[in-house]
Amino acid sequence: MALEASLAQLSIAQVSAEGASATKTLVFKPKTAKTAVPVPVVVVALQTTQTPAGAIAAAAGVKEPRLAKEDLVQEFFGVAPKEFSPASITKEHAGKIKLLVDQAITETGAYELSTESAKASIAGKDLIGYLQSTGVEIIPVDFSAAPAPTPAAAAKKAATAPKKNDAALDAKLIGVTVDKFLDFPGWYQQILTKGEMLDYYDVSGCYIMRPASYAVWEEIQDFFNKRIKAMGVKNCAFPLFVSQRVLEKEKDHIEGFAPEVAWVTRAGSSELDEPIAIRPTSETVMYPYYAKWIQSHRDLPLKLNQWNSVVRWEFKHPQPFLRTREFLWQEGHTAHLTFDEANEEVLQILDHYASIYQDLLAVPVIKGKKTEKEKFAGGYFTTTVEGYIPATGRGIQGATSHCLGQNFSKMFNIVVENPEGPDKPKLHAWQNSWGLSTRVIGVMVMIHSDNKGLVIPPRVSQYQAVVIPVGITAKTTEEQARAIKEGAKDIEATLKKAGIRAIGDYRDNYSPGWKFSDWELKGLPIRLEFGPKDLEKKSVTVVRRNDSKKYNVALDDLTTEIPKILDQLHHDLFAKAKEAFDTHRVVVENWDDFVPALNAKNVILSPWCGEMECEEDIKDSSAKRNDDEEEEVDEKAPSMGAKSLCIPFEQPELKEGTKCVKCGKKAINYTMFGRSY
Amino acid sequence: MALEASLAQLSIAQVSAEGASATKTLVFKPKTAKTAVPVPVVVVALQTTQTPAGAIAAAAGVKEPRLAKEDLVQEFFGVAPKEFSPASITKEHAGKIKLLVDQAITETGAYELSTESAKASIAGKDLIGYLQSTGVEIIPVDFSAAPAPTPAAAAKKAATAPKKNDAALDAKLIGVTVDKFLDFPGWYQQILTKGEMLDYYDVSGCYIMRPASYAVWEEIQDFFNKRIKAMGVKNCAFPLFVSQRVLEKEKDHIEGFAPEVAWVTRAGSSELDEPIAIRPTSETVMYPYYAKWIQSHRDLPLKLNQWNSVVRWEFKHPQPFLRTREFLWQEGHTAHLTFDEANEEVLQILDHYASIYQDLLAVPVIKGKKTEKEKFAGGYFTTTVEGYIPATGRGIQGATSHCLGQNFSKMFNIVVENPEGPDKPKLHAWQNSWGLSTRVIGVMVMIHSDNKGLVIPPRVSQYQAVVIPVGITAKTTEEQARAIKEGAKDIEATLKKAGIRAIGDYRDNYSPGWKFSDWELKGLPIRLEFGPKDLEKKSVTVVRRNDSKKYNVALDDLTTEIPKILDQLHHDLFAKAKEAFDTHRVVVENWDDFVPALNAKNVILSPWCGEMECEEDIKDSSAKRNDDEEEEVDEKAPSMGAKSLCIPFEQPELKEGTKCVKCGKKAINYTMFGRSY
Repeated sequence: MALEASLAQLSIAQVSAEGASATKTLVFKPKTAKTAVPVPVVVVALQTTQTPAGAIAAAAGVKEPRLAKEDLVQEFFGVAPKEFSPASITKEHAGKIKLLVDQAITETGAYELSTESAKASIAGKDLIGYLQSTGVEIIPVDFSAAPAPTPAAAAKKAATAPKKNDAALDAKLIGVTVDKFLDFPGWYQQILTKGEMLDYYDVSGCYIMRPASYAVWEEIQDFFNKRIKAMGVKNCAFPLFVSQRVLEKEKDHIEGFAPEVAWVTRAGSSELDEPIAIRPTSETVMYPYYAKWIQSHRDLPLKLNQWNSVVRWEFKHPQPFLRTREFLWQEGHTAHLTFDEANEEVLQILDHYASIYQDLLAVPVIKGKKTEKEKFAGGYFTTTVEGYIPATGRGIQGATSHCLGQNFSKMFNIVVENPEGPDKPKLHAWQNSWGLSTRVIGVMVMIHSDNKGLVIPPRVSQYQAVVIPVGITAKTTEEQARAIKEGAKDIEATLKKAGIRAIGDYRDNYSPGWKFSDWELKGLPIRLEFGPKDLEKKSVTVVRRNDSKKYNVALDDLTTEIPKILDQLHHDLFAKAKEAFDTHRVVVENWDDFVPALNAKNVILSPWCGEMECEEDIKDSSAKRNDDEEEEVDEKAPSMGAKSLCIPFEQPELKEGTKCVKCGKKAINYTMFGRSY
Repeated sequence: MALEASLAQLSIAQVSAEGASATKTLVFKPKTAKTAVPVPVVVVALQTTQTPAGAIAAAAGVKEPRLAKEDLVQEFFGVAPKEFSPASITKEHAGKIKLLVDQAITETGAYELSTESAKASIAGKDLIGYLQSTGVEIIPVDFSAAPAPTPAAAAKKAATAPKKNDAALDAKLIGVTVDKFLDFPGWYQQILTKGEMLDYYDVSGCYIMRPASYAVWEEIQDFFNKRIKAMGVKNCAFPLFVSQRVLEKEKDHIEGFAPEVAWVTRAGSSELDEPIAIRPTSETVMYPYYAKWIQSHRDLPLKLNQWNSVVRWEFKHPQPFLRTREFLWQEGHTAHLTFDEANEEVLQILDHYASIYQDLLAVPVIKGKKTEKEKFAGGYFTTTVEGYIPATGRGIQGATSHCLGQNFSKMFNIVVENPEGPDKPKLHAWQNSWGLSTRVIGVMVMIHSDNKGLVIPPRVSQYQAVVIPVGITAKTTEEQARAIKEGAKDIEATLKKAGIRAIGDYRDNYSPGWKFSDWELKGLPIRLEFGPKDLEKKSVTVVRRNDSKKYNVALDDLTTEIPKILDQLHHDLFAKAKEAFDTHRVVVENWDDFVPALNAKNVILSPWCGEMECEEDIKDSSAKRNDDEEEEVDEKAPSMGAKSLCIPFEQPELKEGTKCVKCGKKAINYTMFGRSY
């Protein structure tokens, strides 16, 4: 029975998600004798409820329940697992299945049911009433009795007493069970972990970058290394540790970082004489040596970069890639004779950052300058690329390129004789620092991915294409089956030879459908299906991950067509993200329109006076909850005000006499504001 | 006057260095009016004495003394600076120079004089007597009055209160002032810092890898990444931090590392609830997740690698690259279904390590297995590549590839169902771990470099060739000078286009000779000199760094000949190092010959019983100082005993009935012993 019909049957008129709790509906197959007819176990539970196999086994009185394969779900309920919902249960199933319902689902609650193609909300009494009406016996289960591990706790448990435990089984569920627009943080976590990009770790705020995400980082490293080496920048490695004395040398700078610095105080069983800091960034680590190495104006420019990790022990809620206590980045530190030279480099680097986002990750960004309030602590000015996350309507800082001016060179005495003569005053170097972190990966994931899992842009994806043999059934002759498999392997080899990062999936124990879902979850840009018809026609079916668009490509054209398809995919991802950003970047001239525009998931371009007090006022005023216009943006940041994101280099025309959107003083530019990460 | 003649004049018969202190002789030019005749200041001092410009200025009563350029030294003393010694001072100089003599040089001491091409020892009274005989007034200077900073202290000083200080000036001296064979640690430190490979840091045991050394590391990364990716290994990143609980999970393992673990106990101003360790290696960091990810035998093999830094807070004397508290490395961690598969990989990786040493760094190594005493804590067996440092006669561990067996998989429960059926016992994974660190750079430097500075093998050198315009004098026409400079730039461009890492040195303020020394110090494999004759003949003069061998290469043949020259240079460096290793790896059958062979700077292959007690006995017995045969190997390890280095895979024939070299029990193999790093 189709979901639409079922929903009608449930008499659900409104399909709004207002206040409804998300649910999941899962089908398990218990271990049974081969000759016995299987009795599926259906579990209806809150999405946030952990449903370990052990609890299911105990409640249903079965052995080793495993998530049912597609075949079984299709056979029993007439739908694919991804379209399965409580509406798929009918009177036909009475006595043939076991039905476990989470006790957290109550008659008084409101619930969101969702499948891949549809979703609807329903009152608890209607949901339970419907299930009762089918005649299937309902077994209520208190899953909370066995305390549900949080992801961090689960990781901790795995770390300390690893077991083939039920949580691990639950984590293996194929398919994302959370909706991107209903529970963004839950969705983000699921696609990262189920897509095998990242895992949680038993030290809070630290995460494991699995090969799928590290490969993205390696592509970025290659790209950026080529660019900066062409500019004369050289890579190097400074120590992880910094002494307290050196760290605290620049006052404004350390004030910005001090609350987040991790301190080593003990080695083995010995207390250190002096605690030693782990670098939160390397300005004060490096600049004493710049002072030593730069003796003459001929030693300038000095341009160094490092790829390393830094530690900022934040106490705010951590989020993979976006806010982590340790993160990988590159930090460039350069010293120049003149401001002009330093300034030129700041902008060149910013262009490279924009290029990483746009040309590699298919993510549109806006280039601009930070306000005084938001600039780098101790620097002269900060430039930035700013992105936008459509699902939450929040802005996100992409990467920053700072001109430090002469502040640090004065602190650290980075000084050279005047080239015009020893009688002229000595010159302090003009310095820059610039950094881009693994945050980029989080931004990329948030923007492109969907309810089927990750969508990774082709230029950075670990694998760009997966080849899957299809259409082998019981009727297929052995010879034909072999020809299909060999053909698929040939395709994989041809692609690899052409420099395309291809992988073949020839596993015998999974159906093609299962494999499709698996690779969709992992976000591979395209899959190539090779079956009997393709064999006959000497072609292959190519399916794009992002929109399921299909192509038929002749085998002879593989090496020319597949790169084109990948390239087009990149541009289409970019265009889609750009449209979302462009339509949600609105010009607001009057304060009355400001908060409503924010609440409609926009970032805002407003004429602004440039004063720090006004900026703080904007943040406070857009965060107030006693204003009727206010709504929660998301659960993790319920009352967040708008920060300035940047003063874009590309400005709307500022007409004579335009006033600041907030304070009414003379506006000096248009500034981009938004709720942000 | 030639040095030989001068030495004869000094009546020096014996030229042995027995107990003589090394000296340096430097020429400074004070700041003088342009019209005035300069009065050079000659400083004769112990090599270990710091001679800051300030102290020289005060003692000589001059302003801003700077190291004299080649021209001036040549003009006044008739020799090049590199051939300058006290013997170059004659009666002609009376009244024309100022002569400062270190008070640490006394009549009762014995001193080593050395120039690039010769050295000799001399009694203090003869040295001082000779200088007096010239009639030049001797100004004695107590340089120790201004306490001489140690390198670490100097770095600390620079770090905390950076100044254009005198120590920095001293550090800028061109040329190595320490002899490789007389003061190996001092020489090593000088060539690394003056060659701009590394700098000392204000946290003890931590060092700065400058671009010249980091570039070597990048070449190694590229090379090794290609090899391991072809084996199906993937890169990833695990956190820097590890909880105490997880770190201490494997008992033998943590016993090996506990004394060196650095602990973070504080973040900002908050004490952490539990101290958190910085990884000394990542076995216990990673394996809980291996247990989670490996659910089925189809998840095997799992092959991950990371390029990261680890911290081992050693309290022994640190040494750049060889023993540092933080170091960069790669650590591979793999899990396999069978021992055979794991074992095969251990040896493949060892081959790659040998290839890095031999094919990239031109360093010969011996492959073998570690004894039980020396194997990785908690592992099953350890394989290793072992190198040899001719200057000290010590062995050095190059890199290790461990089979961990099933010890960790049992501890961390990395287990899969038996592929033969669920009724068969579950299987614990077979694991390997393998690592290669920046130590390789230290080994490379120690082996190839010489008294002129670094010698970097061409395949890993940041720059492979420097192009220097030469022969431009006052007589050169402007047109010809321009043609030479343009020609040099064309050569540089041609080389770069052919993929050779070339750099041109077109600085106007330095003479070609100064540039030669500068690039020799930095260890560039070849320099290309382009002067008037080359211009005429359409060719270029190529000089090899390692042995000054010269080639004439037609400009038309550059792109074919230079790669050949670089390749030959690689092979010649390797052959020379291999000969040194081969002639100093001696077979010793009797204990009586063991210690004398060690003292003659050999590593030793001896028949051995394989028992740990005997191994400890060998170490103790070869370290005793009351044995007349004993001598100090070097100042930093005066009484070091011989450790087992490895049981080489290539064995001499072990004849029936051969007895252990030490205890006389039955020998089971030949084991390589040596003093080591």
